[in-house]
Amino acid sequence: MAWHYALTIDPAASDDDRDDFADTFTEIDPAAPALNVGELSTQRGDGIFESIGVIDSHAQEVVPHLERLAHSARLCDLPAPHLPQWRQAVDLVAAHAGPGESVIKLILSRGVEHGPAPTAWVTAAAAADFTVPRTRGIRVVTLDRGFDSGAAARAPWLLLGAKTLSYAVNMAAIREAKRRGADDAIFVSTDGIVLEAPTASLILRRGDAFLTPAPTGSILHGTTQLSAFEWLASQGHRTEYASIPASDLATADAAWLVSSVRLAAPITAIDGVPLGGDAEFTAALNAYLLSPRD
Amino acid sequence: MAWHYALTIDPAASDDDRDDFADTFTEIDPAAPALNVGELSTQRGDGIFESIGVIDSHAQEVVPHLERLAHSARLCDLPAPHLPQWRQAVDLVAAHAGPGESVIKLILSRGVEHGPAPTAWVTAAAAADFTVPRTRGIRVVTLDRGFDSGAAARAPWLLLGAKTLSYAVNMAAIREAKRRGADDAIFVSTDGIVLEAPTASLILRRGDAFLTPAPTGSILHGTTQLSAFEWLASQGHRTEYASIPASDLATADAAWLVSSVRLAAPITAIDGVPLGGDAEFTAALNAYLLSPRD
Repeated sequence: MAWHYALTIDPAASDDDRDDFADTFTEIDPAAPALNVGELSTQRGDGIFESIGVIDSHAQEVVPHLERLAHSARLCDLPAPHLPQWRQAVDLVAAHAGPGESVIKLILSRGVEHGPAPTAWVTAAAAADFTVPRTRGIRVVTLDRGFDSGAAARAPWLLLGAKTLSYAVNMAAIREAKRRGADDAIFVSTDGIVLEAPTASLILRRGDAFLTPAPTGSILHGTTQLSAFEWLASQGHRTEYASIPASDLATADAAWLVSSVRLAAPITAIDGVPLGGDAEFTAALNAYLLSPRD
Repeated sequence: MAWHYALTIDPAASDDDRDDFADTFTEIDPAAPALNVGELSTQRGDGIFESIGVIDSHAQEVVPHLERLAHSARLCDLPAPHLPQWRQAVDLVAAHAGPGESVIKLILSRGVEHGPAPTAWVTAAAAADFTVPRTRGIRVVTLDRGFDSGAAARAPWLLLGAKTLSYAVNMAAIREAKRRGADDAIFVSTDGIVLEAPTASLILRRGDAFLTPAPTGSILHGTTQLSAFEWLASQGHRTEYASIPASDLATADAAWLVSSVRLAAPITAIDGVPLGGDAEFTAALNAYLLSPRD
């Protein structure tokens, strides 16, 4: 990792109306030991996170990311993050990111086992070079997510709408995709509804309409998808949240996986079936996603 | 945490036939920072673990735990743990555990993001006092696990038979049980088959037979359940792996959740329906589980 900067936040020190939280931050060396082995983030994947894209030290879409962090905290019974404190931490860390593309990660852990309080930290590191997926595209395979589209409403303890640190299945799905000769995966519910990618949202184009799976609680509401839909609407395109049957994927006119750091990656094939694309349109979308956004 | 001892293992240093791996261990202070924020165990819950009960410095059932660690590694595409190296680490850590009950945790993480190799560590800490659940019992609720009993075979990327660090759902299920006035949960598949508890296995008694859900890949094969079945058989009881419908729970003659550190906790009620018990039998089972076992 090419680290830029990291700090820990004392989330228990935020219970007041002050404007400056600098004394609740502690700079740490991200390449040196910083976490206790008793951390429940590491023992149990018990915590939540956000990954924020950073362009030339400007953190993108910080408010939607912080709102989703708060939403994940509610679903996981974690104390509500004090958003002004986190905002200041993000701005401080972003200022150390320097030129080019970076990624900021926010982590709120349940803390050390039997410890008094949650622990939290924010890091910035150089982003990987995503020129190839953004321009040449990615091949995806569909993978069974194991649950039906009613599970989230029926069983909130499955934490399906929370961005938790328990991402082993997401990582295993990407390995499975690579084993099948693809680059990434799209999860499908057992009742055949398209969900999301392991670390991205899906956007389809059908005629002049852009569709994305409705964030009904089974999936995360993608911050980059939200931002892309705003831009598409401003360009006069129709956008729509929909329940998308997996059988509709092969007949889409174009499709993208969108996420905060890789941005828009056009899909060139789904389960081996080639998909059309529009290189000029994708370039315009990524130019927008690379421009400073709040 | 009342820590006894901790060490890191260099799992990459095990590729030879030597008998002594002491130079691949590094003692660490478990109460001090020891892990990098780039750890994939903490960022992604991407790793595997085992919890081993320790009685008076004797680690229980080490071989089945190490075999399950190797099984989890295979399911998660992690390098195979070199079992003689791990065995020596367990013995060394157990020797520092002292008198009374302790717990040893083994963790094999995918390592630091973009790092060269997995990371691993072993800790020992004092166990909590489980006298109350062992003697007075626990109330449990059944909770929907979200997937059907065929999911594990159909979608191995769901990692259902692996003991991964991605336990946020297991922890959320225990919180949901407590919200409902119970102590613990039993997961049930969407097709109504009894699975396991978030951190324990289920054993039922029906007449003179002891049953446990068959470890078909949807659940972990409990090391304490295995050991309890051996003891039950030695006492002349019939033991059986079975597909148990959730509707059979209420009519069991007795039931226990068994796990490596809490041992056998008799279930006093399932979803509010009282269940019979046998305090003398439970005491004999726990006396066996507290005796030195290999």
